[in-house]
Amino acid sequence: MVIKKIAATLFIAAITISGAVYAADAKPAAPDFAKQIGDLATSAGTLKIAIDTLWTVVAGMLVFWMNAGFALVESGFCRSKNTVNILAKNFVVFALSTLSFWVIGWGLMFGKGNDYVGLEGLFLLGGADNSPATGEAYKGVYDSMNWTGVPLNAKFFFQLVFAGTAATIVSGAVAERIKFHSFVVFSLVLVAILYPITGHWVWGGGWLAAANFRDFAGSTVVHSVGGWAALAGVIVLGPRIGKYSPDGKVKPILGHNMTSAALGTLILWLGWFGFNPGSFMGVGEGSGLAHVLLATNIAAAMGALAATATSWILLKKPDLGMILNGTLAGLVAITAPCAFVTLGASALIGAIGGALVVMSVLFFDKIKIDDPVGATSVHLVCGIFGTLATGFFYDYEIAKNVAGLSGDVVDPAKWSIGSQIVVQIKGILAVGGFTFVASLVLWYVLKLAGGIRVSRDEEIMGLDVGEHGNEAYADFQEVNR
Amino acid sequence: MVIKKIAATLFIAAITISGAVYAADAKPAAPDFAKQIGDLATSAGTLKIAIDTLWTVVAGMLVFWMNAGFALVESGFCRSKNTVNILAKNFVVFALSTLSFWVIGWGLMFGKGNDYVGLEGLFLLGGADNSPATGEAYKGVYDSMNWTGVPLNAKFFFQLVFAGTAATIVSGAVAERIKFHSFVVFSLVLVAILYPITGHWVWGGGWLAAANFRDFAGSTVVHSVGGWAALAGVIVLGPRIGKYSPDGKVKPILGHNMTSAALGTLILWLGWFGFNPGSFMGVGEGSGLAHVLLATNIAAAMGALAATATSWILLKKPDLGMILNGTLAGLVAITAPCAFVTLGASALIGAIGGALVVMSVLFFDKIKIDDPVGATSVHLVCGIFGTLATGFFYDYEIAKNVAGLSGDVVDPAKWSIGSQIVVQIKGILAVGGFTFVASLVLWYVLKLAGGIRVSRDEEIMGLDVGEHGNEAYADFQEVNR
Amino acid sequence: MVIKKIAATLFIAAITISGAVYAADAKPAAPDFAKQIGDLATSAGTLKIAIDTLWTVVAGMLVFWMNAGFALVESGFCRSKNTVNILAKNFVVFALSTLSFWVIGWGLMFGKGNDYVGLEGLFLLGGADNSPATGEAYKGVYDSMNWTGVPLNAKFFFQLVFAGTAATIVSGAVAERIKFHSFVVFSLVLVAILYPITGHWVWGGGWLAAANFRDFAGSTVVHSVGGWAALAGVIVLGPRIGKYSPDGKVKPILGHNMTSAALGTLILWLGWFGFNPGSFMGVGEGSGLAHVLLATNIAAAMGALAATATSWILLKKPDLGMILNGTLAGLVAITAPCAFVTLGASALIGAIGGALVVMSVLFFDKIKIDDPVGATSVHLVCGIFGTLATGFFYDYEIAKNVAGLSGDVVDPAKWSIGSQIVVQIKGILAVGGFTFVASLVLWYVLKLAGGIRVSRDEEIMGLDVGEHGNEAYADFQEVNR
Repeated sequence: MVIKKIAATLFIAAITISGAVYAADAKPAAPDFAKQIGDLATSAGTLKIAIDTLWTVVAGMLVFWMNAGFALVESGFCRSKNTVNILAKNFVVFALSTLSFWVIGWGLMFGKGNDYVGLEGLFLLGGADNSPATGEAYKGVYDSMNWTGVPLNAKFFFQLVFAGTAATIVSGAVAERIKFHSFVVFSLVLVAILYPITGHWVWGGGWLAAANFRDFAGSTVVHSVGGWAALAGVIVLGPRIGKYSPDGKVKPILGHNMTSAALGTLILWLGWFGFNPGSFMGVGEGSGLAHVLLATNIAAAMGALAATATSWILLKKPDLGMILNGTLAGLVAITAPCAFVTLGASALIGAIGGALVVMSVLFFDKIKIDDPVGATSVHLVCGIFGTLATGFFYDYEIAKNVAGLSGDVVDPAKWSIGSQIVVQIKGILAVGGFTFVASLVLWYVLKLAGGIRVSRDEEIMGLDVGEHGNEAYADFQEVNR
Repeated sequence: MVIKKIAATLFIAAITISGAVYAADAKPAAPDFAKQIGDLATSAGTLKIAIDTLWTVVAGMLVFWMNAGFALVESGFCRSKNTVNILAKNFVVFALSTLSFWVIGWGLMFGKGNDYVGLEGLFLLGGADNSPATGEAYKGVYDSMNWTGVPLNAKFFFQLVFAGTAATIVSGAVAERIKFHSFVVFSLVLVAILYPITGHWVWGGGWLAAANFRDFAGSTVVHSVGGWAALAGVIVLGPRIGKYSPDGKVKPILGHNMTSAALGTLILWLGWFGFNPGSFMGVGEGSGLAHVLLATNIAAAMGALAATATSWILLKKPDLGMILNGTLAGLVAITAPCAFVTLGASALIGAIGGALVVMSVLFFDKIKIDDPVGATSVHLVCGIFGTLATGFFYDYEIAKNVAGLSGDVVDPAKWSIGSQIVVQIKGILAVGGFTFVASLVLWYVLKLAGGIRVSRDEEIMGLDVGEHGNEAYADFQEVNR
Repeated sequence: MVIKKIAATLFIAAITISGAVYAADAKPAAPDFAKQIGDLATSAGTLKIAIDTLWTVVAGMLVFWMNAGFALVESGFCRSKNTVNILAKNFVVFALSTLSFWVIGWGLMFGKGNDYVGLEGLFLLGGADNSPATGEAYKGVYDSMNWTGVPLNAKFFFQLVFAGTAATIVSGAVAERIKFHSFVVFSLVLVAILYPITGHWVWGGGWLAAANFRDFAGSTVVHSVGGWAALAGVIVLGPRIGKYSPDGKVKPILGHNMTSAALGTLILWLGWFGFNPGSFMGVGEGSGLAHVLLATNIAAAMGALAATATSWILLKKPDLGMILNGTLAGLVAITAPCAFVTLGASALIGAIGGALVVMSVLFFDKIKIDDPVGATSVHLVCGIFGTLATGFFYDYEIAKNVAGLSGDVVDPAKWSIGSQIVVQIKGILAVGGFTFVASLVLWYVLKLAGGIRVSRDEEIMGLDVGEHGNEAYADFQEVNR
């Protein structure tokens, strides 16, 4: 404990100083008020950094926890014979994200650079940086992140778990037929290069940031990017064997474990309380955080209710899969606008998302885009919708008080809902266009270089045995489908 | 990132001010100490609000997470053919709680009103409110909540997840035979109207608060209320087919997934660390929070151990279902008294709860009250016991230091254990009487208006197919029971 | 709410004082700056205690949550017929840990005593203590814990969940054949006596602390201790029936639920963000915490990747069980060094751990040490490796800035990597020697006193029915193995 004693001694320095100030009162000499006040101000500054760091890392942990949510939702919605493969993909993709976002991704996204990409401090968080200094006091190469007063490692951790999310979204859409190593390579490139580039445009001080494009926590930056990459993959891969028969019928391929799917969705809902409110990367005076948290929860709830109602009407019964995807749809949709819209608008956005996702799932099946878990409907369709909704439901007062958008940035005289909607559309198209095309190319390259789809036999037998030599449920009598 | 930069600029205002104070030291002019000290005091106030808000929302997230616990415990203790239905109920009930507690419930519970119900600021958090101002400085209609210095949205989020809990408790007791839409309607009314009314009596400044009734985190306000509503439902519904044969034998209907049940119980245990310590809605100086946290954990542990021992004695073997319910029993029992009793008393309260729940489960089966998950035993019986125990084990010193009960409130000369016990009993009877009768009426009305129980065929086939057209475990060979 | 109002009044005392200071400015009389500054310093001190307490208890909750991870990993890796038994063990062992660490363990570990064991304030946290006072200001018998400024109950809660972890590790290794009550008794002694004794040596101010042995969060103190106790148990118990045939063949006994195992591993990963960064028992200025958090995450990721690669090479396919154990291996390995090494070294340590665990699992099977879940490989082998790595990769700058090791403690002139490595080896041998021998003796005594292994019939039928009279999955057609 010697070490820890010393550590503690350092930690309590601020307080010790304060104590000294108090004790100084007893001294006969005239107390140096200016110095004492200065010391106290320093103490208060340290406490502010501490609390902001605490929330940033706890929120990051909640987002990390979404990995469990994705793993369960995806595997639950797929067949038991592919469970091990899906779980393994989820582990490896986050592990690789950690490595690749550390090695290069962070630098491309947040490093000083031009309008399109970061160019300084590219590798291993190695650029100059004096975080937690903020604003003018910040001296370093990651100045697009100088608005939050937390240490560099905390900034990185929070952004890393976001990057991991984008890659994980792809996993579900290409499940049950993709080769393990193809997915691994795609994820590596996505997190190392593609995601950081469009991320730089919006959150790294690039051209969309300059154009006042608004995406508070990533409906576009994270979810749509994952969704576009997924859509490209699904198109290149083709549907699962037996999903669409030649006579045009769609065969429902049921998930193997709705307990997993439901638990996973609740994990994601919880994780989103880190995703959206955590995007402040600090607590501030608390009310902005509380607004975003409540908006997020209301949108999720309304998404669940709207999907329940929509599936009850369209499918005659309230389908659990739709309820779960409706919840996620509400969450994805509110991710961009949560800090710019009223609670009432949040309810409406969530509800529209929840209805939209049901129709989108049915639509994609109609055009024979086979996405086993509905990731494209949830993350792409509702990601686009949420980004648009940020424009349509933009509330100037909320934006000023919650997101902190003030007259200094956008002169209310020059700003209009119309202009905001236009820039939102511009951002959606630009980020989508880049990611979709780049992903298509990457998937095709991988296809040419050895193929990305497992053999017909392996797909029928299941990827667990084929790719991993494992069984997920060795003690249970299973029904092969 | 432009937006975020501005947001951050606002957030760091307090610190910037502090910094200015320090810099001012260098100026030749006499520093304005009074102003500098005032600014620092404001900074400290903002930091306090930030930390209290952080804990309130994190604790609220932990309580939200209990939804996953309830979903898993309930579905795990029931048969696989009803899994989807139970999971769907849990999603929809929380989503509806969000909507109905926002629209009307919060106002009825915490709005300014009379001894029996809130009457101002009823809808959509729409009343006047200047939170996070506290005490005298608070000006608004939710003054029963003016003791916590956090923003209104944070107060609402924390109370919302509590309201959701009450409704979820009902779900388990009526499982495996209730119609989906009947449960949905009941939950809506419970969270919108019944729960807020008795909640107003105790936590909203009503007549039980005035009578010094003590229920720190809701043994009565949340758990017993859910338990009474559940008991009424079970009575109106009747037992599951085959549970009690005409010759008086009780057929054990085993749960389908003890992994789910155990994981769910651990989730609830974790969630309770938000439920009880979070009820401070702030961190304070930390020691009260730590006491309540430890009391909660000790009671849970003792509940588990006592149930292990009791079931070992009564059933000859340590039954896992009983161990899990014993843990929950300890937690429910300590919910009211955790801030008023010593750690030693907490251990005893938890142990009694754990033993009690085993006997209660056996007793309810004897009188043919069929509650598939033991919700009535856990939440009603132990909720009542915990509320009583708050009187019997009340420790004046702990109450003063932890719950903050001081001589100003209850003059020690006028206070006695006996009077405390009497008021606890009064509260138990009043809240229970109102909730049970109102729930009975509501269940009967629903029964008359179309029936609340699924058909015999559907019950035997399972509600997953009947109510939702879904299967929970499509790839597994199941044994129909 | 009357109570809560009063509670709040106390909580906001500091702020009220600050407010008074500000108001004082308006008074005609000369403001008493010294007093006002003193009051503000007190406020700042209270806020620091609050934030440190908040992180300590939240981190403790994350470590508590690891109980769910262990329960799922262990049961998932074992056969379905022993699921209830494993879940019950996990519940009861944590409940007993709570009781026994409270009654005696904490005192033995952190009470004032000699180099080998605590001797004062042994029972029920009953010693003198004026926490949250720190350093010189601390007056009490738990002075080995005087470096953290949080209330005693918070210190205890955090250390309790650590103690519980050590006992839980044993559970997995002895699974599928140990008698329930034998395991219960062993755990009780481990947490009450053995763990606290070696814990006292390192974290309680004992002889290894004095020798500058370094184990930041417990690679040795927690994980190796659990691992040694497990190894002793496995040796005394012998392998499961059928695991090793007389002709030297090893029969793989597959886990029954890889969804459980994967979810459990993600829970443990998340829990480790409390385990390692929480070991500061405070936030400090945040950067140390962020470093440890990121080091932990990087090591876990590299462990997963290295195990993927190693199993791909050695077993021809990326085995999910190995990926999961590789993740845990990285986490165990980084537990001791996380506050002393660079992020680059963390990556290397994690990677080595991940490769090591694959080879260790294969090795233990070769020498017929039958550990169903690989707990010995993960916690013992990687615990030893991590403790060694703390010496080999020790970075003086990081240690100073993160762990707070400064020249005051170890004069850089007198310190060398070589000396650090030597003391690390000394600690590994001493803690391991004591724990292994004491555990062996204890297991043998239990064996003599009635036997620790279930009957052959019970083992084949499964412990769920034999020990508990329960079934884990009553609705599923199972394949008995």
